[in-house]
Amino acid sequence: MTAITKITSNKIFGGTQKVFAHDSKELGCSMRFAIFIPPQCDQGKAPVIYWLSGLECTEANCIQKSGIQRHAAEHGVIIVCPDTSPRGLNLPGEKDSWDFGEGAGFYLDATEAPWNKNYRMYSYVTSELIDVVNANFPVIPGKQSIMGHSMGGHGALVCALKNPTLYKSVSAFAPICNPSQGAWGKKALEGYLGPQSKGLWSQWDATELVKSFKGDPMELFIDQGTADQFLSQLLPENLINTCKDTQMPTILKMREGYDHSYYYIATFIGEHVAYHAQHLCN
Amino acid sequence: MTAITKITSNKIFGGTQKVFAHDSKELGCSMRFAIFIPPQCDQGKAPVIYWLSGLECTEANCIQKSGIQRHAAEHGVIIVCPDTSPRGLNLPGEKDSWDFGEGAGFYLDATEAPWNKNYRMYSYVTSELIDVVNANFPVIPGKQSIMGHSMGGHGALVCALKNPTLYKSVSAFAPICNPSQGAWGKKALEGYLGPQSKGLWSQWDATELVKSFKGDPMELFIDQGTADQFLSQLLPENLINTCKDTQMPTILKMREGYDHSYYYIATFIGEHVAYHAQHLCN
Repeated sequence: MTAITKITSNKIFGGTQKVFAHDSKELGCSMRFAIFIPPQCDQGKAPVIYWLSGLECTEANCIQKSGIQRHAAEHGVIIVCPDTSPRGLNLPGEKDSWDFGEGAGFYLDATEAPWNKNYRMYSYVTSELIDVVNANFPVIPGKQSIMGHSMGGHGALVCALKNPTLYKSVSAFAPICNPSQGAWGKKALEGYLGPQSKGLWSQWDATELVKSFKGDPMELFIDQGTADQFLSQLLPENLINTCKDTQMPTILKMREGYDHSYYYIATFIGEHVAYHAQHLCN
Repeated sequence: MTAITKITSNKIFGGTQKVFAHDSKELGCSMRFAIFIPPQCDQGKAPVIYWLSGLECTEANCIQKSGIQRHAAEHGVIIVCPDTSPRGLNLPGEKDSWDFGEGAGFYLDATEAPWNKNYRMYSYVTSELIDVVNANFPVIPGKQSIMGHSMGGHGALVCALKNPTLYKSVSAFAPICNPSQGAWGKKALEGYLGPQSKGLWSQWDATELVKSFKGDPMELFIDQGTADQFLSQLLPENLINTCKDTQMPTILKMREGYDHSYYYIATFIGEHVAYHAQHLCN
């Protein structure tokens, strides 16, 4: 079992917000993750919601800025927030950009050198991290959902679409819905996977994954502010139109006047926690 | 009228969180303050709660980490968060310590050089800032309360005790209750006011101000976590015992297992906003 090391522990809303570090085999470096344990865990196990953060974030943003603990305590769910990329590898170019390399792992498994050895956030999130959490905390195995913001919204959608039975539900705030078509996404996909001509991009693009999706329809809960300054990167209309064409069910909440920030997330994260809790606790 | 310059504006909980800069006459530098305008202000004016932050903070901490906007929107109150000291003056020693100088203005009017010209956070908070807010935002003049955290809890108590009719109510999270007796307080009082023998410290110490308080009793709402790592700096028992001796009414909420962090504040700030709203809206 992977050893985990406690970094911080703070009481909040009757539960405990902790941060741990552990040596990730998948990523080949020490990784931090945050975990909120609700007060209900004094009496037993609880389901888990995984939160994936956006570009430039760490495990800290959601737990400090979203107010998620209030809602997790209300519904009795554990919240796990991983970091957004490997850290401290000193790969060439790793720190050159805010939207590629450190803080910008894009929740995929890279195939291009020098990234392919360590930039495996997809396998980390969908497998290793779940094992670490299940082994060390009072979770109900298999009772897990996933959500995220921006790059992390892309990550949540991709993790769920590629693993139709792994999560009970999926939601995303202002997700990068069609990275093959936006500047952030193109840069990341090219850097981690090589040029589009190699044919790998569609495996890591929610809109493309919906097109090729097989199996029982999976409801996608998409939340989007109308005043988001990055709409041209996010392209929610491409995903929503594709879902309409393929009869993939969606919940689309457009939030009038809200932007891309954690102020927007804080306003609506309670709805998302309630949505996931409904799927996890039934 | 002082000109104010908008720095940011974000929609949150149906209202708007803004940050402004203005040239402060009292402090002789450009100052930032944050202001949350609740949705009720679409229909008219609202009362105001001033929030004073602690050591090392800026106008940003409360608005990013406390979740106060949810409660302010519920109760229809404006929230104003000033910075914690003058900035960018380049006074000798101003940046040498985390607990003195920049980020540590202690909400007093300094008398010692070189601080006495600019370190006048007390006059700024109790006069100039109120004028700026009243002149530029839809506030009900005179309908204001004050609260704060740690150094800012000290500030809230001192501002209220020195001005018994200025605020409708006062509350404090983990306040420095008796700065003359703790290391942080002694350093600040000596630096800004000179040695205790000059006789000025008692004018800026909540416990001493309660001892000399004249006029109608003023209720002090003190909130304190039992696991606070800085209890030896805060000395709430000194203030509470003095209030008992002088029949000053207090509400003391001891929070089992909570520490000094914004996780603690986030958990209970809703109770404080409700308390102030009750005093402001009746």
